[in-house]
Order: sequence, then structure tokens, then C-alpha cells
Amino acid sequence: MSEVARPTLSDALTERMLELIRTGGHRPGDRLPSTRELSQRFAVTTPTLREALRRLEATGAIELRHGSGIYVGAAIERLVLPNPNMREIHAAQLLELLDARILIEPPLAALAAEHAGSEELAALRQTLDEAARHLRGEDAELHDANMTFHRATARMAGNSVLHEVVDSLLTVHGPEQREILQIFDDRRRDHEEHLEILAAIEARDAARAEQRMRAHLADVKTVIEHRMQPPE
Amino acid sequence: MSEVARPTLSDALTERMLELIRTGGHRPGDRLPSTRELSQRFAVTTPTLREALRRLEATGAIELRHGSGIYVGAAIERLVLPNPNMREIHAAQLLELLDARILIEPPLAALAAEHAGSEELAALRQTLDEAARHLRGEDAELHDANMTFHRATARMAGNSVLHEVVDSLLTVHGPEQREILQIFDDRRRDHEEHLEILAAIEARDAARAEQRMRAHLADVKTVIEHRMQPPE
Repeated sequence: MSEVARPTLSDALTERMLELIRTGGHRPGDRLPSTRELSQRFAVTTPTLREALRRLEATGAIELRHGSGIYVGAAIERLVLPNPNMREIHAAQLLELLDARILIEPPLAALAAEHAGSEELAALRQTLDEAARHLRGEDAELHDANMTFHRATARMAGNSVLHEVVDSLLTVHGPEQREILQIFDDRRRDHEEHLEILAAIEARDAARAEQRMRAHLADVKTVIEHRMQPPE
Repeated sequence: MSEVARPTLSDALTERMLELIRTGGHRPGDRLPSTRELSQRFAVTTPTLREALRRLEATGAIELRHGSGIYVGAAIERLVLPNPNMREIHAAQLLELLDARILIEPPLAALAAEHAGSEELAALRQTLDEAARHLRGEDAELHDANMTFHRATARMAGNSVLHEVVDSLLTVHGPEQREILQIFDDRRRDHEEHLEILAAIEARDAARAEQRMRAHLADVKTVIEHRMQPPE
């Protein structure tokens, strides 16, 4: 046991890797030195280095691409992350997650209506066009387009921290959300509600965008509550 | 390089560890089998096992206690985590973080006023008594008491997901917050504002608790903005 619990070396190495990225001015997507170079630079064995790299990989600070190398990860500058170990959300957590989205996403839709640039609006419209093409098709593709719609709306609000929060909630929420889509009526209604939100954002109507987002998420919650009830 | 980027074995092992915890009905704080037992059970070498363990440790799914063993981590059931690799928040991010808190914490203070049990209220009062004792003392202890106040208020609202979000924001926010406390006037005002929030929660006055929390965080933001300006 003692070998694993010895924190100093692996902790110190993780710190040094983060420092290397920071002081090197590296940005997400930048390539870092190879494992061999890093082992030499830090004067550690490959297994010890790998522990530190796996740790940084698990939290999105680096990406290990097979046969290619080590890159700075997209999550390195994030404040908030989705828990990568979540495998299933239990019912109570799912309803709390929906309540969290109901608190956060509507004011972000209002801010999106105020701040969105024309390119962002065009991309948002395209996302719903994409969703429309998959309404009768694959769950996964419809789900992806719908999640892109919610993420993009949150991003357009212009607060990166709140965007990260919404992104994290949608990431852990994914599989359950997809299951909900399996009833066609809900897919259709979901889509129509998204179109209403988009219309309010395009019209720069902040109050309406907020109200439509809140009503939409309340509907999603109702569907989930309904599906949670045992069949009669 | 190729050895590190080979995802299958370490990924599979992480999955099997999570499955072991889940199917074993283990809860946070429970002790897991030793490294030796796990190596044997999964038929892998110790370095390979350690990669998976470091990964799970980095994301709070397990805790490795020196000389004691492997335990289920407190974060395993969380949906949202603070980024453990954050070392410094830049100015723009800090203001966005405050705006995020201004959006989320006031409605939670309102819910706390509605839902708090008498034991929770007593604990919240004790936290501010503790803060009062450190008003002229150590930064670290005052800071801890103040963060406990904000976390406890969020927890009392009764939504674990929103509590995790607030906890994550406060965790990454910590060092900057502590720096702000260094001006004594702000420490004193901060504390008085906390007392006002507590009074509103104790009085079960949801609207006032929400309004007091919003005003308090707006003050914190003003202090931060002021300190960010270059000295004249």
C-alpha cells in the first residue's frame, strides 16, 4: 500500500507539469514534450511520470493522443468540471439537476438575447436545423444537437464560468436526457420549445427568452417526473 | 509515447474500480481492498493499477491515505467538481465567478430561509461566532469560517447539485477571496453582512435573505473591482 499513498513525488510532478504548461505560455491544443523528454527533464521513471500524466488527463489538463503525443487539454483553464466518474444519476439527483438548470439557464437565455452576435445566432439556428433533420432519426444525433443548443445559448450569455457550470450539468445529464427523447411526442415538443427560445433570442427579447427557457425546462422536469412514476 | 497514450488498459481498470465500488454498495469513507489485493483481482501490475488509482484520486472518487489504505472518496457521487488544476484565476474570470455567485447564491439563501432545520441554523450561527473570534486574527481561519458560512447556506437550500456548484466556485475562488480579506475594513463589513443574512434566514424571511445575499455579493464584487484597478 505505502507506495501508492506516498503523495510527494506524484503530487510534485503534477505541480511541475502544470508549471511547465503555465510558464511555457502553452494554450489548449498545444503540444507538450514527449514522455521520454519529460522523464529526463524531471529525472523520474516512466511509471512515475505516467501516474502524474493520468492524473492530469483525468481532469482534462492534458490530452494523451495515441501515437501522437501529449497536448494541453481544453479543460485546463476551467473552474468547474463535470465529474468524469458519474455513471448513473439516481432519481432524486436528476430532479435536483433539473431544478439547478431551471435556476441558471433562463437568466442566461435573457443575457444571450442581449449579447449574441449575428454569427452566433446563425450557428444557433443551424443547430436547430440539424436537430430538425434528426427528429425522426437517430437518438444520439438529435440529442447532440439539442445539447449543443443549450450549451450555445449558455455560452452566448458571455459568462464563461456559468457556461462551464451549464456544460458540466449537461454532460452528467446526458444519458438520462437521451432516454427521455425516446417518446416521439416529447422529441417534437422539445424541438418546438427550442425554436421558441431561438425566436425570442433572435428578436432580442430578453424577458421572453428567459420565460420560454424556464417554461421549457419546467416541461422537461414534468416529463421526467412522469416517467419516474411506476406504471399503473 | 505510445505506452502512455494506450488508453484501453488504464481506462478499463478505472471502469472496473468504479464498478467494484458501485456493485459493492460502498459509500464515501468505506475502505477498499489493498493495492496488492486489487492487483491480483484485476490481474495487472502495480504500476498499471497505480495509474488507475491516481486517476480516480485526482477526481475525488477514491482517497489514498498514507500507511492506511484506499477509501471511497467524498466526491464520488458529485455531479460537478472544482478543477483541481486551477492555480490562479485571472481578473476577468474572477469577475465572472462573482457574477455566477450573484446569480446562484441569493435564491439559495431564500430557500435556506424556508427549509433550514433548527440544528442547521444553530451551526450557521456558530460559524459566524467562530468568524467573529478571528476578525482580528489569522486570515486563514477567518477565511475558512466565511467559506463555511456560504457553503452551509447553499447546503441548507436543499438542492445537492446547486450546493456542489457553489462549493466548486468557492473552492477555486479561495485564494483570491483570502487576499481580499487583508484589508480590515472589508473583513468587518463582510462579517456584518453575513450577520444580516443569518438574521434574515433565522427570521424565515426568504425575500430578505435573498436580497441581503445579493447585496453582500455585489459588495464583494465592488471590492474586487476596486482592488483590480492600478494604484494611482
